[in-house]
Amino acid sequence: MDSIKNRKTIRKYKLTDVPSELLNSLLEESFRASTMGNLQLYSVVVTRDKSMKEKLAPAHFNQPMATSAPVVLTFCADFNRVSLWCRQRKAKPGYDNFLSFMNAVSDALLVTQNFCTLAEEVGLGICYLGTTIYNPDQIIDTLNLPELVIPVATITVGYPDENPDQPERLPVCGLIHEEIYRQYTSEDIDRIYQEKESMPENKKFVEINKTETLAQIFTDIRYKKSDLELMSDKFIGVLRKQGFFK
Amino acid sequence: MDSIKNRKTIRKYKLTDVPSELLNSLLEESFRASTMGNLQLYSVVVTRDKSMKEKLAPAHFNQPMATSAPVVLTFCADFNRVSLWCRQRKAKPGYDNFLSFMNAVSDALLVTQNFCTLAEEVGLGICYLGTTIYNPDQIIDTLNLPELVIPVATITVGYPDENPDQPERLPVCGLIHEEIYRQYTSEDIDRIYQEKESMPENKKFVEINKTETLAQIFTDIRYKKSDLELMSDKFIGVLRKQGFFK
Repeated sequence: MDSIKNRKTIRKYKLTDVPSELLNSLLEESFRASTMGNLQLYSVVVTRDKSMKEKLAPAHFNQPMATSAPVVLTFCADFNRVSLWCRQRKAKPGYDNFLSFMNAVSDALLVTQNFCTLAEEVGLGICYLGTTIYNPDQIIDTLNLPELVIPVATITVGYPDENPDQPERLPVCGLIHEEIYRQYTSEDIDRIYQEKESMPENKKFVEINKTETLAQIFTDIRYKKSDLELMSDKFIGVLRKQGFFK
Repeated sequence: MDSIKNRKTIRKYKLTDVPSELLNSLLEESFRASTMGNLQLYSVVVTRDKSMKEKLAPAHFNQPMATSAPVVLTFCADFNRVSLWCRQRKAKPGYDNFLSFMNAVSDALLVTQNFCTLAEEVGLGICYLGTTIYNPDQIIDTLNLPELVIPVATITVGYPDENPDQPERLPVCGLIHEEIYRQYTSEDIDRIYQEKESMPENKKFVEINKTETLAQIFTDIRYKKSDLELMSDKFIGVLRKQGFFK
């Protein structure tokens, strides 16, 4: 499938709007993904309003596409709707626990990826904002998410106004294990990361960031232990507040 | 896209094998999914060996497709490979925390869904085994998963030997929220679940299970609070053991 094989993240969009009908029909198709007990443990919040995008932007560290994309979609793990249904049907829901959160996360992320594929198939460009799980509290407040609903992925959507190079990927043999997981030797690691490290753009990246190695950019600048620990505590607080972790 | 629109879970497979070359090329394409910092925080374990399938089967509650499918794929959240790379490059990895687990889960599940779409496009059938996160400890033991690796999805793969009906889905308007999440009224819930509840197969399901409502099948039989609480504790234990939760 060319759209998956050739895919790249699009961060700049044309001003052209994405029609509601098209968006809803792509979402409807995406909801065909596998789902726990056919319960569809997700909701999608569609943001088109300029002022709403501006309210969401700080949660996404003000990345430009969060406000410049015509559509921002927040995919949420959702056990609220099912729980309301249960209570209304003389059934006592028991989904205020961590495993239920994980089930809803799975449902929501399968749908997210399905949507991305479908959007790209019709010529739209998307960008996945990983920031969603860094600042779920701000998103919850802005989007008015009730208990048992937590945002897990944000996708910006629009018609591409750029054509970036496709990012590199590790050699596939480094990610697949036959029958059992074979722990990597230091030679394996060298072999797997060799191409990535020798790419001119990554060498330049090291130069600009003034680190000794490419890996240090990740550990010392982009994804630092101290930040991740703070955000872990925040996320667990959100799980508690939204009722998934007693 | 017809393959997504018409998709259905396939639990019965022909004996025909799935060639390694085809499988690897589908996995390679699936690895084009969005990934945090282009770090590809996942691994896939391919199970073809009969005795290995039999060892995995109890973790999947011995569902027949776990042993009858020619291929079983276990998609894992993986911060082990990246951490080894960091250490080998004078970088100190700080990924033994919950947020890193969530980042790796996102990466792994996007790839899982990408793989499913690609497999279905070439005529393969898949079944998503939700049991993976119920019994991760057994899977970790069987597949020899090291610290910072946790299985998050299992997919059985093969050429379809059945053609089941497509399962119903809730009306799309019940899952999409414009601008903010609008809490459901009891009328909304009735409207959203009406079609599902009135389907002859679901009515029969209620009859067979001797419950008063369809919702009670989920709360009292299929996904019980007490089971989910036990499995939540187990999962958190696994997070701790695999080094994601101190």
